[in-house]
Amino acid sequence: MSKNEAPGTAFDRRLSALAARVEARLEEWLSDAVRPGEIARPARLMAAMRHGALGGGKRLRPFLTVEAAALFGVPEKVGLDAGTAIECLHCYSLVHDDLPSMDDDDLRRGRPTVHRAFDEATAILAGDALLTLALEALADRVQADADVRAALVAGLARAGGLGGMVGGQMLDLAAEGRYGAPLRDPAATRTLQAMKTGALLVFSAEAGAILGRAGAGERAALAAYGRAIGAAFQVADDILDRTTDAATLGKATAKDAQKGKATLVDLLGMDAAIAERDRLAEEAVAALAPFGPAADLLRDAARFTVSRRS
Amino acid sequence: MSKNEAPGTAFDRRLSALAARVEARLEEWLSDAVRPGEIARPARLMAAMRHGALGGGKRLRPFLTVEAAALFGVPEKVGLDAGTAIECLHCYSLVHDDLPSMDDDDLRRGRPTVHRAFDEATAILAGDALLTLALEALADRVQADADVRAALVAGLARAGGLGGMVGGQMLDLAAEGRYGAPLRDPAATRTLQAMKTGALLVFSAEAGAILGRAGAGERAALAAYGRAIGAAFQVADDILDRTTDAATLGKATAKDAQKGKATLVDLLGMDAAIAERDRLAEEAVAALAPFGPAADLLRDAARFTVSRRS
Repeated sequence: MSKNEAPGTAFDRRLSALAARVEARLEEWLSDAVRPGEIARPARLMAAMRHGALGGGKRLRPFLTVEAAALFGVPEKVGLDAGTAIECLHCYSLVHDDLPSMDDDDLRRGRPTVHRAFDEATAILAGDALLTLALEALADRVQADADVRAALVAGLARAGGLGGMVGGQMLDLAAEGRYGAPLRDPAATRTLQAMKTGALLVFSAEAGAILGRAGAGERAALAAYGRAIGAAFQVADDILDRTTDAATLGKATAKDAQKGKATLVDLLGMDAAIAERDRLAEEAVAALAPFGPAADLLRDAARFTVSRRS
Repeated sequence: MSKNEAPGTAFDRRLSALAARVEARLEEWLSDAVRPGEIARPARLMAAMRHGALGGGKRLRPFLTVEAAALFGVPEKVGLDAGTAIECLHCYSLVHDDLPSMDDDDLRRGRPTVHRAFDEATAILAGDALLTLALEALADRVQADADVRAALVAGLARAGGLGGMVGGQMLDLAAEGRYGAPLRDPAATRTLQAMKTGALLVFSAEAGAILGRAGAGERAALAAYGRAIGAAFQVADDILDRTTDAATLGKATAKDAQKGKATLVDLLGMDAAIAERDRLAEEAVAALAPFGPAADLLRDAARFTVSRRS
């Protein structure tokens, strides 16, 4: 929830409440207590993993999973475990994206990035371990039948892997012009973003459908919602990067421009980018039509992409 | 199989035959062809993943899985899919361990390491994607019931994660003295090695028991075998590192010594290290007693740790 918005809407309260529960789960998962099947939990690694995963973020992905799962009567506890695993994978991606050889960021959520607080090797290992933990948690800790757990692992790995998030980060580095000409094409930029940030948001919503054993039509509706909200978030990020100061965002701004990386704001212009963001948010709202008023909080999440200030 | 050994034993032939099948599977998994649920396969990422995973290695881990699974009548194809996933995770660990901020190796299996052939960012992403693919394959591609697939994912993630392999790499970096005093204690060195290389070898054997729905006693026997063979391999590696030239090993030698990292050879002396290796190999052989002659190839694998030259 943004500090600049009036608190107290149902969406804000729900997002904050779930974020606190995600935080508590991550604290438990990342404690120093050795679990069965583990040999030891090295203190430095655990501290770096906690630095990378705790104390920040809107926790939007678990919100999407819990609320999507709730449409099918899945208990909040079950949705939260799955959503926390997705958040854990998201946190790994931030730790690795911030590395010196990647985006070279010193600041994340207003604090030093993991490689600045520790060192590069520790940050790489902390990311590796957060990714591994995310998939272990889905396979093992979510209270659901084995076929559901296996489907969640496969889905998250696909969304987070070579054909999704990791592939998107590769394309993003190439877009800077590291390996050839910089990217200047809106369609290719949308594909890059659909991979880098979209795929995980799509899966966050789809995971609710998997947990709820939803029909193909309902699952497709949630995937469409996820695609639209993911794209809307990315355009909104690009807009905020150009219009908001670093202190408000808690991370460096205008870095894309410094690197010669073109965002949709550059390629389309600010007015067209704002129009695209708003259109995508409405598309996300429309995709939820089959679910009626039960999906109101998910609709609010789509509208939040338009109104947020950080 | 070592180039310096006489070819033609049953173990050598089996290891080579399975290695060729693992290679074929990895080639298929790492092709440029986009699979359902993927948005695109970026060419540079795929090339780096292939560089890190194809064309090398004894493929000992899949051998252990296939042969352990065969004890319970599991078809070779099924064991191979699971074993290939474990090998895929092993390959990611080599790509990340070789990175400049980690072990800083230029050479692996006689070829440039991934970050030397590509660049550091690409190597980090290729490793991330190989890890993710490994767990996706277990969840999705292995022809087994969902409870078996979920158990394989959980087991591999636990063996490869914070309390196993990644944690062991963290302890290994600390053992050099990066974050305090260098490690000079045989017991702590054994724990480090049980995590860094042992956990994955243990799981490679245990995976066969999981695939075969083995009883607790059989699974424990295979885990004991894996622990002994893993420890034997590590001591054998330390011995080879001091007695073999880089051209034969296909990687730099005596690097531990250069970094001030003490191996069991330093801590115990060469003679005691050789005795420990041989004792562990016999312990591995003894653990297989419940399986009778059906486990002869697995016994040969244990003896191979003693005889290998590279």
